[in-house]
Amino acid sequence: MVRIEGEEGRVRRVVTKTTEYDADLVIMAAGVRPNVDIARDAGLEIGETGALAVNEFMQTSDPDIYAGGDLVQNRHLASGRACFAPLGSTANKHGRVIGDNVCGGASRFAGISGTFICKVFYFNAGATGLTEAKAAAAGLDFYTANASGMDIAHYYQGAQAMAQKLVIERGTDRVLGYQAIGGGDTARRIDVVATAIRFGATIDQLADLDLAYAPPYAQAVDCLLHAANAARNKRDGVMKGISPAEARALLQADKAAVIDVRGEMEYKRMRLPARRSYNIPVDDLPARVAELPRDLPLIAVCTVGLRGYAAQKTLDAAGFADVRVLEGGLFQWPWKDELQ
Amino acid sequence: MVRIEGEEGRVRRVVTKTTEYDADLVIMAAGVRPNVDIARDAGLEIGETGALAVNEFMQTSDPDIYAGGDLVQNRHLASGRACFAPLGSTANKHGRVIGDNVCGGASRFAGISGTFICKVFYFNAGATGLTEAKAAAAGLDFYTANASGMDIAHYYQGAQAMAQKLVIERGTDRVLGYQAIGGGDTARRIDVVATAIRFGATIDQLADLDLAYAPPYAQAVDCLLHAANAARNKRDGVMKGISPAEARALLQADKAAVIDVRGEMEYKRMRLPARRSYNIPVDDLPARVAELPRDLPLIAVCTVGLRGYAAQKTLDAAGFADVRVLEGGLFQWPWKDELQ
Repeated sequence: MVRIEGEEGRVRRVVTKTTEYDADLVIMAAGVRPNVDIARDAGLEIGETGALAVNEFMQTSDPDIYAGGDLVQNRHLASGRACFAPLGSTANKHGRVIGDNVCGGASRFAGISGTFICKVFYFNAGATGLTEAKAAAAGLDFYTANASGMDIAHYYQGAQAMAQKLVIERGTDRVLGYQAIGGGDTARRIDVVATAIRFGATIDQLADLDLAYAPPYAQAVDCLLHAANAARNKRDGVMKGISPAEARALLQADKAAVIDVRGEMEYKRMRLPARRSYNIPVDDLPARVAELPRDLPLIAVCTVGLRGYAAQKTLDAAGFADVRVLEGGLFQWPWKDELQ
Repeated sequence: MVRIEGEEGRVRRVVTKTTEYDADLVIMAAGVRPNVDIARDAGLEIGETGALAVNEFMQTSDPDIYAGGDLVQNRHLASGRACFAPLGSTANKHGRVIGDNVCGGASRFAGISGTFICKVFYFNAGATGLTEAKAAAAGLDFYTANASGMDIAHYYQGAQAMAQKLVIERGTDRVLGYQAIGGGDTARRIDVVATAIRFGATIDQLADLDLAYAPPYAQAVDCLLHAANAARNKRDGVMKGISPAEARALLQADKAAVIDVRGEMEYKRMRLPARRSYNIPVDDLPARVAELPRDLPLIAVCTVGLRGYAAQKTLDAAGFADVRVLEGGLFQWPWKDELQ
């Protein structure tokens, strides 16, 4: 970017080296880099992330010099690795540890879970732990589960749908990460998973949590616990799930067909792009399985994943070899502009 | 109660055996008792709580009979004891475990944290784990901390004050319980503590949690973490706190004086009842310590506890022997009708 131009006090365009973009709104998302010049000049050790290295007492490589806040690197509790995650909440915790220790105490900073949240217009978008990409970069073997859900009782005023994704270590079943976005209360579920990650919780332990329930606050099975159960069902082979990205790749290569088990009107209004697509409402499915091809994988699709799961069980019982549920349903399909 | 009487479709009074109460609204809070008649007649073991006894697989004393929901007793994760806590969220978890097991699985139900929440007009009131009374009944040695805080950044639209109380086991520093009430987001903090209790978290681990922070969602030091820090300060003797109940007892017996460090206007508008009460704004305190008596305990009072804590540190440094902060400040004083 070369410059931002405006007229009459309002932004009008963004000028780059090669072109111009008309703009009514410019969002700067340039990231943050720690300014470690003074620390480097003083001979202090810089960490592998480019931020200042400190130990759990918040001491730099010179034990008489403490550092905290956006300048330092942290240890990530899910990956065990160094990471750079400048946040005011973390800086405050650093400050308390440093304050204790410069006064003769021996306080330790435990590390971070990589938690963040931000308000994106009407959406509350946040995450904790590792994303799929970060888990892969950390060399971890993992599985994921996408699940949609309502943040409070679906019949209660103001209920909002949420898209959720869990990342879980294969073998240990340890929860590695969680991402959530929606108009409703994502922050609560993110904080619960941040806490669970702090204590090395497994997906089974997460699913069992005794979370606060009353209709103004949650569904009787909280959407987070539903996501955990979906992950367990997927692990155990009870639910055969497919992520939106995997489904898209199969469908684009025409290596799978869609079985959309929503109502006809729903299907006509909006559906997945696929060369082979069948619409049979879930209640009609047992009587109409003969209409479906048996020579290629089927992707069972509905709005949030519930009817798709029922369809998978029906088709499994009818002897279909490879039926997978689109996890999170159409609600969680990220490529809205590709829908037909 | 004998009966509820109404006129023209509206309730008017409650008639008891000895008197009548005029009423515009009647709230029934009669509790719930499990109906175990059939189970008892069938020879199944009834638990010490009066609810049906089940093991972690949700089997009754007859292993071919499973039971769940409001009929059965649960194991409380904070006390380790049997408890009766009929809730829809727990019943749903029971159902999944039973469903797994009657189909040949071996799923276990971990137990409950005693979490609940309810909407009381504009307030969100809830708790998890053990209250002070329940911890005492369970024979546990514990300390408590009361702390007030804002649910989101204080400068952000819609910020609401919350009253919080933590119960912590002495010696182990294990978090036993948490109660919160306020107009804002208590549910999130209750769920975090419910998760922490599930994993046997200490108060230090609770204080270190990497919770989601952005101004629309939390203060940079989340009010729950602030409460945890207040508890740590109290444990370590850095903050000398006194609970509202303890303060009230001392003041009613005239065994302590109030040093109210709010502004004069605040003091005139509303203050604690006390025979001996001094009002010195916190900023003036260092210069005016000579005005305060040294022969009896002082209770430092402000709105939420912050200025009171500063006053305690000032008076400690000035050699006062027994200064304690009213935890949670006047905001958390439960006996509003006693305020002057």
